[in-house]
Amino acid sequence: MINAVGRDIPEEILKITGKEVFQGNHYRDGYTYKKNGPETKCVINNTESKLVDNIRQVLVKCGIRDGMTLSFHHHFREGDYIINMVMEEVYKMGIKDITICASSLGKAHDPIVPYIEEGVITEIQSSGVRGKIGEAISAGKLKGLAVMRSHGGRVRAIESGETKIDIAFIGTPTCDDYGNCRGIGGKNDCGVLSYAVVDADYADKVVAITDCLVPFPNFPAHISMTKVDYVVVVDEIGDSKKIATGAAKPTTDMRKLMMAEYCTQFVTHAPYFKDGFSYQTGVGGASIASTISLAKIMKEKNVRMRFGVGGLTKPMCDLLVNGQVDCLLDTQDFDLAAVESVKDLKHFRISAGEYANPFNKGAVVNKLDFVILAALEVDVNFNCNVVVDSNGMITGAQGGHPDTAAGAKCSIVIVPLLQGRTPAVCSEVTTVTTPGESIDVVVTDYGIAINPQRKDLIACMKGVDLPFKTIEQLRDIAYSIAGEPQKVPFGDRVVGIIESRDGTIMDVVRQVKPFEFSE
Amino acid sequence: MINAVGRDIPEEILKITGKEVFQGNHYRDGYTYKKNGPETKCVINNTESKLVDNIRQVLVKCGIRDGMTLSFHHHFREGDYIINMVMEEVYKMGIKDITICASSLGKAHDPIVPYIEEGVITEIQSSGVRGKIGEAISAGKLKGLAVMRSHGGRVRAIESGETKIDIAFIGTPTCDDYGNCRGIGGKNDCGVLSYAVVDADYADKVVAITDCLVPFPNFPAHISMTKVDYVVVVDEIGDSKKIATGAAKPTTDMRKLMMAEYCTQFVTHAPYFKDGFSYQTGVGGASIASTISLAKIMKEKNVRMRFGVGGLTKPMCDLLVNGQVDCLLDTQDFDLAAVESVKDLKHFRISAGEYANPFNKGAVVNKLDFVILAALEVDVNFNCNVVVDSNGMITGAQGGHPDTAAGAKCSIVIVPLLQGRTPAVCSEVTTVTTPGESIDVVVTDYGIAINPQRKDLIACMKGVDLPFKTIEQLRDIAYSIAGEPQKVPFGDRVVGIIESRDGTIMDVVRQVKPFEFSE
Repeated sequence: MINAVGRDIPEEILKITGKEVFQGNHYRDGYTYKKNGPETKCVINNTESKLVDNIRQVLVKCGIRDGMTLSFHHHFREGDYIINMVMEEVYKMGIKDITICASSLGKAHDPIVPYIEEGVITEIQSSGVRGKIGEAISAGKLKGLAVMRSHGGRVRAIESGETKIDIAFIGTPTCDDYGNCRGIGGKNDCGVLSYAVVDADYADKVVAITDCLVPFPNFPAHISMTKVDYVVVVDEIGDSKKIATGAAKPTTDMRKLMMAEYCTQFVTHAPYFKDGFSYQTGVGGASIASTISLAKIMKEKNVRMRFGVGGLTKPMCDLLVNGQVDCLLDTQDFDLAAVESVKDLKHFRISAGEYANPFNKGAVVNKLDFVILAALEVDVNFNCNVVVDSNGMITGAQGGHPDTAAGAKCSIVIVPLLQGRTPAVCSEVTTVTTPGESIDVVVTDYGIAINPQRKDLIACMKGVDLPFKTIEQLRDIAYSIAGEPQKVPFGDRVVGIIESRDGTIMDVVRQVKPFEFSE
Repeated sequence: MINAVGRDIPEEILKITGKEVFQGNHYRDGYTYKKNGPETKCVINNTESKLVDNIRQVLVKCGIRDGMTLSFHHHFREGDYIINMVMEEVYKMGIKDITICASSLGKAHDPIVPYIEEGVITEIQSSGVRGKIGEAISAGKLKGLAVMRSHGGRVRAIESGETKIDIAFIGTPTCDDYGNCRGIGGKNDCGVLSYAVVDADYADKVVAITDCLVPFPNFPAHISMTKVDYVVVVDEIGDSKKIATGAAKPTTDMRKLMMAEYCTQFVTHAPYFKDGFSYQTGVGGASIASTISLAKIMKEKNVRMRFGVGGLTKPMCDLLVNGQVDCLLDTQDFDLAAVESVKDLKHFRISAGEYANPFNKGAVVNKLDFVILAALEVDVNFNCNVVVDSNGMITGAQGGHPDTAAGAKCSIVIVPLLQGRTPAVCSEVTTVTTPGESIDVVVTDYGIAINPQRKDLIACMKGVDLPFKTIEQLRDIAYSIAGEPQKVPFGDRVVGIIESRDGTIMDVVRQVKPFEFSE
């Protein structure tokens, strides 16, 4: 069945998943549903200890068995030790058919690929997958489906009961013996525990894993003891120095700086750029550079930001230090400067649900004026792809991309016209992850295209000295330089679905064919 | 059927309520149940306003109809305007058969008595009731049952789905246009919104009512916008000056000072009195005096408190100011000094669930060393009554009494031997609200009785210079002075039930007979 972004979703996938095809951003607005609730074991007596000696014992106490769903959060990013630690024990115990429900998976988790191959892990739900797990899924090694969800979509899936977590594992920088978790104060801080909040709220069993046990009460708790069954102390939960691995540093790449400058010029000429505006940006080099150049113009024009949202990096935190923003709302820290900044009284933690869940009574993304995003590909319908590379391999994550793009009044995608030798602006993206209706502006190094649906923005930019073009013109330039890209030779089998934030199906990802030399 | 505290619970009541009789504090430890979830209407679009002009319109938007359950919190105590404001509109709209689920009800709500008489309100669930509502219930004017629950028991009832709230009304000192509520920062601060947290989590519709609208985001939110459907701005939500009405000031009553001194001597000789101990006390004159005298001894003996819990008053907050306690955990502020103290970074807000819910994975009360409580009556089995006066009239509230008494390692009840001309230590309390197994020590102005079950405490107090007596000796002294009290001449009809914190029935309250002069 063809969905609202023109993708043909196989009937069989609709049948297996029980899902509908994507029908547009506003389809489920006002929808009413009953939230799920966890199976909770009461602790009435005051004599019980929640401390358990090791991962194996806690798996036994939680009643680990074949077919369970285990959940994890990714605040430690490339420095995470928890998933591998838990899955190694699960494997050793001979457990099979586990579904991993992670807020994201990265290269740190390459060691679990053998468990995928051996059927210990048979389904994966994640924002996305980088590294060898992505390759394994694209190669068809996962028995079941990989479900790729946005950060907001994950909260929706869990709160609605679509995903039922049997055991949640929460790597926490500090914890007391009764399970009060904090993202800060230990030897490996990650700043916030935002993605894990929904896991703690809805999993039947919740295990806090820490390398820094502190006296009760570890308050203010980011995750409450009232949700935690067991506490396990291990040597190291992760390596916080690796949180920033892969994240961009301020760039010197002239092309990125130019795009950042275009973006900032656009932002400052948009009607939302005024005292009290709100802003989010990603972790790409051009995004970070645009925050730095925006800060400069804000100072010149004496315009103050009300709140910044993220996925935060040092340049956003600098706004707070320099008194250019009233407060920051934080779901994740991309570098140690951001982790440190969380101690500021105006740097507020928010849960992933508060950030982006489309199925609550209103998330922060709905209050965004601007979001600055990146993409692997954008097509002439403004559809974006942030998960599958142009070879068809799963290599990225939705993150908050579809959530913020849908919520913000002005969503801007910065993308170089060519990614290496491949056109990034194209006729049709390999995989749709964010629908074109959510994207207002595409900024490239060869010009800026405004979504024709945004006649107001087009009118507003009349006379502004920026290289405006149509999206088709940008594609044509890309194709004239690098040629029209060939279609990826996908196989038939669907290995993953790209879930829309409301749970409908945006696209499917098919198995990649082994590379063959053309004759 | 006779329950674990010897009360005969009528079969008919068990049938109507579907409840079991109380079977002891530990009966439900380890019990596993599925938590309920609210019907939630999604706000996906970023164009909607949550602001509604007035109470009537918000009732219409929430689909108010006969038979609904409306919930309220009592942080404004005698200064609360919300309940009367909402119920007046409900009455004007001709709605009937409303169940009120309030965290407590007091004299401020006398104006709703006519709605009870007219069948607008037919059931009441509350920690207790003071003032004319109590009289109306005891006189049999409420059509249905009044259910009296502890603060922890209320959270249990709501989270388990036993009580389903249709519309929750949250009076909030500050709120932004998207529903982020804070207990502080407005013209009528109440400090915390702890009792309302569960209402926001589990009610189908949640209405924030404020007299101080502030810019988005009103962070850190004590109740999140993700739970709030509508925001109504009114002239005044309450009068914070009346929060402290009725609460005790430091006493000069020699009898109370003596009991406070006995209590403090007992505490400081108990094994739990050491660096890092935890402590809660109530709002009665003797309780407050005991905090003051305890602070003095802590200083002398160089003993530091790890955390204080409450229901907080100035003397507890002074411990923080004076560096004698690491932190305070706060569910309610009993005076404006406590409201002001909430701004201290070590004065932490906790929800009623974190405080006392027996049906989560462990509440703060389980970590208490000492709790100092009051009572209307204590009997020779150490059962306490804090709800019904010796004339049989409902006049008090369970509050956190049964929760803290069950959770604390050492629970001490301070009670004058005679309340006016009535023995407060008696053979059998009028109504059991807290079971004797939860009470370790009774301190009176005529002596101190240790629960014989606590052989460890009895051994510990050998040689301590305090007037120890058996509880029977205390009763006998009381009876020798004031005579054995006559049984209250209750009628047959059950007008209310005293629910145990685990949802079983502790006792029933019957209609009082009109007073008759004896011949």
